[in-house]
Amino acid sequence: MCAQLLSTQPYKGTRDFYPDDMRLRNWFFGKIRTALEVAAFEEYNGPMLESLEMYIAKSGEEIANEQTYNFTDRGGRRLAVRPEMTPTVARLVAGKIGELNFPLKWFSIPNLYRYERPQRGRLREHWQVNVDIFGCDGYEADMEVISTAVMLLRQFNADESMFKVHINNRRFFNDVIATIAGTDAEGSKRVSKIVDKKNKVTRDAYEEEMQRLGIDADKIAKIDALYNMSVDEAVAICPDSQGSKELIELFSALRHAGLDKYCVFDFGIIRGLDYYTGTVFEVFDEAPENNRAMFGGGRYDNLVGLFVKNTNVSGVGFGFGDVTLENFLVTHDLIPDIYNEGTKVLVTRFDDVPYEKYISITNSLRDAGIVSSMYIGSKKFGKQIDYAVKGRYSHVIIMGASELETSNVKIKNLSTREEVTVSISSITDYFLK
Amino acid sequence: MCAQLLSTQPYKGTRDFYPDDMRLRNWFFGKIRTALEVAAFEEYNGPMLESLEMYIAKSGEEIANEQTYNFTDRGGRRLAVRPEMTPTVARLVAGKIGELNFPLKWFSIPNLYRYERPQRGRLREHWQVNVDIFGCDGYEADMEVISTAVMLLRQFNADESMFKVHINNRRFFNDVIATIAGTDAEGSKRVSKIVDKKNKVTRDAYEEEMQRLGIDADKIAKIDALYNMSVDEAVAICPDSQGSKELIELFSALRHAGLDKYCVFDFGIIRGLDYYTGTVFEVFDEAPENNRAMFGGGRYDNLVGLFVKNTNVSGVGFGFGDVTLENFLVTHDLIPDIYNEGTKVLVTRFDDVPYEKYISITNSLRDAGIVSSMYIGSKKFGKQIDYAVKGRYSHVIIMGASELETSNVKIKNLSTREEVTVSISSITDYFLK
Repeated sequence: MCAQLLSTQPYKGTRDFYPDDMRLRNWFFGKIRTALEVAAFEEYNGPMLESLEMYIAKSGEEIANEQTYNFTDRGGRRLAVRPEMTPTVARLVAGKIGELNFPLKWFSIPNLYRYERPQRGRLREHWQVNVDIFGCDGYEADMEVISTAVMLLRQFNADESMFKVHINNRRFFNDVIATIAGTDAEGSKRVSKIVDKKNKVTRDAYEEEMQRLGIDADKIAKIDALYNMSVDEAVAICPDSQGSKELIELFSALRHAGLDKYCVFDFGIIRGLDYYTGTVFEVFDEAPENNRAMFGGGRYDNLVGLFVKNTNVSGVGFGFGDVTLENFLVTHDLIPDIYNEGTKVLVTRFDDVPYEKYISITNSLRDAGIVSSMYIGSKKFGKQIDYAVKGRYSHVIIMGASELETSNVKIKNLSTREEVTVSISSITDYFLK
Repeated sequence: MCAQLLSTQPYKGTRDFYPDDMRLRNWFFGKIRTALEVAAFEEYNGPMLESLEMYIAKSGEEIANEQTYNFTDRGGRRLAVRPEMTPTVARLVAGKIGELNFPLKWFSIPNLYRYERPQRGRLREHWQVNVDIFGCDGYEADMEVISTAVMLLRQFNADESMFKVHINNRRFFNDVIATIAGTDAEGSKRVSKIVDKKNKVTRDAYEEEMQRLGIDADKIAKIDALYNMSVDEAVAICPDSQGSKELIELFSALRHAGLDKYCVFDFGIIRGLDYYTGTVFEVFDEAPENNRAMFGGGRYDNLVGLFVKNTNVSGVGFGFGDVTLENFLVTHDLIPDIYNEGTKVLVTRFDDVPYEKYISITNSLRDAGIVSSMYIGSKKFGKQIDYAVKGRYSHVIIMGASELETSNVKIKNLSTREEVTVSISSITDYFLK
């Protein structure tokens, strides 16, 4: 034992979840888990420590080393505390590729670590809902993934005034840029990088970068116009593109399912990562004070191929963190009083009554599924009531020697302050009625 | 991207949870979470990475370094992937010691990492239920903790033929050894170390070690006799010991609560760790083929003191891992058919019917809380049925162009093979009835 006192603070960028915090997290992740299960998604999980090389293979040595917590074990293996779930789920799919029932509809709610520089509000550990469909190349999977994202937010009574899904398609992007600017595949990819960071640079810098790729003012104007087009106007520019076909199918399905009010075509959505291949989307918070992309996702076709040769299992999915969700729910006032726990009974105690009488009453309540506890300890009655109030108990049961003699107890409702006398044998019925 | 294929295996000593595995874990931890909530325990959680010095302070530099995954971050902080939850919960209690509502009844189900040498069956990552009561010095907390352990196993229909709680008390142990052998506090502690490993050494080695402490054959025989004593016989040796008083109160409460059939006094229970101070217990699997201690716990009085000066918050609790629990449930055949999911409906698809008709049916089912999915993709009907069977769907809905014309669908029960025709508008009612 060291003599110096230890700090009570959690490691920088991580959070403690005291019961009230945990209650909130369990509440919103519980709703999400139930909704995903009703939509026939199945939950999986994997280990917190993974081989570092997975992240290197996906994102390159530099990003993997810089942005993950990693170290070498005594056997010389390079390990990372997982920074994201996608490589893990691709590994799981690859590991049982011959036996799994495709298309897979999978989800997970892991905790993840990123090596963020310590600064205000930049968390190093968070929890993330990951939703993916593997093994369906068609727009049907994109449709199911996007409608699931909408459905999850609607679980919290969020409506179309609060969020919008901005949708684009990488194949369409490449083809429409090729049509307008005459670029090849590599050229379109370079343009995507410029468009991706358009909002982070000045207009002059943006135009300069475009012109460096040989895209003149006239072509830039045509690209600008795409931002204001409906999906139908946009796809008309390159109607034969596979991406155009996918956009049309997807938006038609969204319209027929009544989800078009939550969705908008947005040519500016790129999603930086190279592995996205088709549909890409981002969900925006519509609150004026918080108007920004909350989370996103899309189609990635080759991740399982990192693990298995000659395979072609496509994936489409999204992920969003607990902090993002909580911010959204707070901004739009969508968190009900989750701390009102309904019936919760404290069986108070007097020294002149055998303790086992209280245990017996408590056990009957618990057997009936009523949240309850005897008071643990031997403080004075007033302190026990304080404990009940602070612990959000709704009722206390009071049984002194005189009540015991007549096999009765008093039940006090702590919010109405009403008190009733009932027989010991009918306590459970009183709460169940 | 590297050209070499990555391994699909998880890191040695860790496990992947495919949906069937996850279903089992969610099933048993779900039952445990619900039961603990009914007993008014509250859930908390903390970060996966913690300061290494917490574990050094509790267990010493050598054990902390040897048995945890630890590394230094770029700011020079020494971190550990948490190997246990007790230091974290002590830190949380210390961090809000002035505002918390004592006695606390807290639980958590964290994943933990131990740096085990890689060998068969030695896992490095597991999930552990932790149950603790803080801030009650009396036997009432010990009673609540032990009855909670019993109650949790009974949730799975385990009975007294399957497990037993072996109970001892450290204070009693020290006093009874002092009475028999005339040892001082330090001497009794040394005896406890010998008794703790009695079953791991030969009888000769055991006696030799005792004799080295000046405990002769006569005294050894008196200590031997303790193993066969009832709690009443044992405490009679040192009736004035605080430990004796605690044992009597605890066993009396267990008897009155009808829990004595699950419990037995066992002088051999020590629990190696120095921090236990009073009641200690271990839960044994009674199966002849698996007869061993599954998990244990006890009272520890000083952990919060590592963080806060001049404080005295006692704790009593236990923890058990997912692997231990699963082994127990398998051994005693206590896992029901959790893969029979009840009603789960696949809406199959034909190319000549607009896809949105299927989406619409699926959404109605989901809105009514019925687990369901449209078939995602465009495989032939036979393949869709194969998918439904393998995915444990209970029913498929079939709607071709001819059914659509009459606004009807066929519903096929996949286990009875019965098929009924119902109108589109009454599908949901069909499943809810």
